[in-house]
Amino acid sequence: MTLDEFDTIRPIIWKDDNLYLLDQRLLPKQEIYLKLDTVDAVADAIRDMVVRGAPAIGITAAFGVVVAARIRYQESVAHWRELLEPDLDLLAVSRPTAINLFWALKIMHRFIDAVEGDPFPVLLAEAQRIHQQDIVDNRKMGELGANLIGAEQAVLTHCNTGSLATGGFGTALGVIRTAWAMQQLSAVYADETRPWLQGSRLTAWELVHDKIPVTLIAEGAVSTLMRQDKVQWFIVGSDRIAANGDVANKIGTYAGAVQAKHHGVKVMVVAPTSTIDMSVANGAAIPIENRTPDELLAINGSTIAAEGSSAWNPVFDVTPASLVDFIVTEKGIVEAPTAAKMRALMTQ
Amino acid sequence: MTLDEFDTIRPIIWKDDNLYLLDQRLLPKQEIYLKLDTVDAVADAIRDMVVRGAPAIGITAAFGVVVAARIRYQESVAHWRELLEPDLDLLAVSRPTAINLFWALKIMHRFIDAVEGDPFPVLLAEAQRIHQQDIVDNRKMGELGANLIGAEQAVLTHCNTGSLATGGFGTALGVIRTAWAMQQLSAVYADETRPWLQGSRLTAWELVHDKIPVTLIAEGAVSTLMRQDKVQWFIVGSDRIAANGDVANKIGTYAGAVQAKHHGVKVMVVAPTSTIDMSVANGAAIPIENRTPDELLAINGSTIAAEGSSAWNPVFDVTPASLVDFIVTEKGIVEAPTAAKMRALMTQ
Repeated sequence: MTLDEFDTIRPIIWKDDNLYLLDQRLLPKQEIYLKLDTVDAVADAIRDMVVRGAPAIGITAAFGVVVAARIRYQESVAHWRELLEPDLDLLAVSRPTAINLFWALKIMHRFIDAVEGDPFPVLLAEAQRIHQQDIVDNRKMGELGANLIGAEQAVLTHCNTGSLATGGFGTALGVIRTAWAMQQLSAVYADETRPWLQGSRLTAWELVHDKIPVTLIAEGAVSTLMRQDKVQWFIVGSDRIAANGDVANKIGTYAGAVQAKHHGVKVMVVAPTSTIDMSVANGAAIPIENRTPDELLAINGSTIAAEGSSAWNPVFDVTPASLVDFIVTEKGIVEAPTAAKMRALMTQ
Repeated sequence: MTLDEFDTIRPIIWKDDNLYLLDQRLLPKQEIYLKLDTVDAVADAIRDMVVRGAPAIGITAAFGVVVAARIRYQESVAHWRELLEPDLDLLAVSRPTAINLFWALKIMHRFIDAVEGDPFPVLLAEAQRIHQQDIVDNRKMGELGANLIGAEQAVLTHCNTGSLATGGFGTALGVIRTAWAMQQLSAVYADETRPWLQGSRLTAWELVHDKIPVTLIAEGAVSTLMRQDKVQWFIVGSDRIAANGDVANKIGTYAGAVQAKHHGVKVMVVAPTSTIDMSVANGAAIPIENRTPDELLAINGSTIAAEGSSAWNPVFDVTPASLVDFIVTEKGIVEAPTAAKMRALMTQ
């Protein structure tokens, strides 16, 4: 088996000079790519979770800048930069937690500042470079993470960190794909990941697609799974990692890490260095998005909860560095993360 | 406020010489009582979760014996006891974990052995006594548990342990109802309890019914809720408690207890002594039911998970006694349960 067999899904496609996103709200039932030709459409797609996953959000934002700049340059060759600023602001407020969004916008801004003449080819080339680099980095992290795992191990993952959450291949799921290809894994478990069911809908879809057997569990079964020694690793991605190694990720990650620690299960966080935010000292300073209670109260548009109940729906949580065994990045592995080790990684 | 205002729901009704069960599969959308007039119908109702909750299963089984005995006595005044035995066996295999089922069948068997003439009035009186005693016991536990809680506290509960899970009023939810009536509670959280959504569908329905404000959370948010000190208590019921104080309960209870311990949140288990099984030394010997993967893969009959994925669906777990702060029964409270303390409770 070559790894290419496990890298066939692309949620973000630039084709015939247009941006297409695979609508992740409709998976696994329908595979429909939406063409997005305005910055409003791109910002809406990020906000409404047509695309999700920190690296994929960053890549989408980069292409969103390309789409916006093309329109603004057509409007005014002289003033396109000023006209573009509100577009960048619009993309920046589409979602608050994933730092990759701001990281990508910052890179694109450097090119906006520097470009002469028509910005389109230059910005497109940079967005495509960001996209391709993400896939290269994911392959690298896959190798580094799989080497940590060892033989005859079983893993539990949370949310979706695969091709759909990235440019392709995935972060945590990239490690799982690589370890599977290397025949190290005896079993892959995915929790369903309420409320948006990224595990059941997206991770399971990717693994079935790649013919990697997957067993779904309720999040309430995580401790029982671990107590019965059915998994030795809890492998997740991240939306933002603070300077001290605290990890913001999909709600349920911290819960899983607490349970992993209790049962001696190793916690591996897999994320490119674009996810690391050295400007926030620790997890308490990371903005955590709250989404509508409807995500909990209804499924597929059909109400499940009793009428009149309310819900609290923070969609990310923070896992303190003390509960993390490894952070795997494309630049290397940080074991038992601390501020000093994170700084060393980022300045190497 | 009197407690009677919080005790208006009855999932099991004997009326006009017939057994009616509120179909909990249809809640909260529809409130429909099913009339059950054969033992097959009663066993199916228990297996298919028309009725659920350990005490409610026990009470239903007792009425199931009444229904069965009436038919068998009509068939044969001489041989109704022999004819009834397979009916009792059928009820006994309807669900494996809740000990209250076997406890109720054992009591009914004593009356079957002793009765002379038509068994119907005697068995009916005993089933009704079991039902009424359960409500009395729940009121008593409500008082004992509420007294433990203290003022200005917030609680998280799991699954449904209310009127719907019992003869009426509830075990853990009975404590919450009592503490609410005593104005001790600042907030009541319920997790949704995947896969069957007892929290969102049933507990929320009961609390809305009683005008007790309820906030639902995903199970992935339990640790974050606790870390932010939004709750001080995790209050649950039980399907079977072993002789050493290990507690079998709805999947996710053990997960919640692990997280509670990590965050210094107190764990209270509320269950009548009919839930205590002194014949099993510890939790490892309690049979844990696995239900169909479809409970995880679909919601309301509509598939949510990717086609081709499988699921592991144990519907109960075991919380070791070491993670339990209090077991509240109608006979009294056991703090930090041990085998010696459980024995003392049961022989007092």
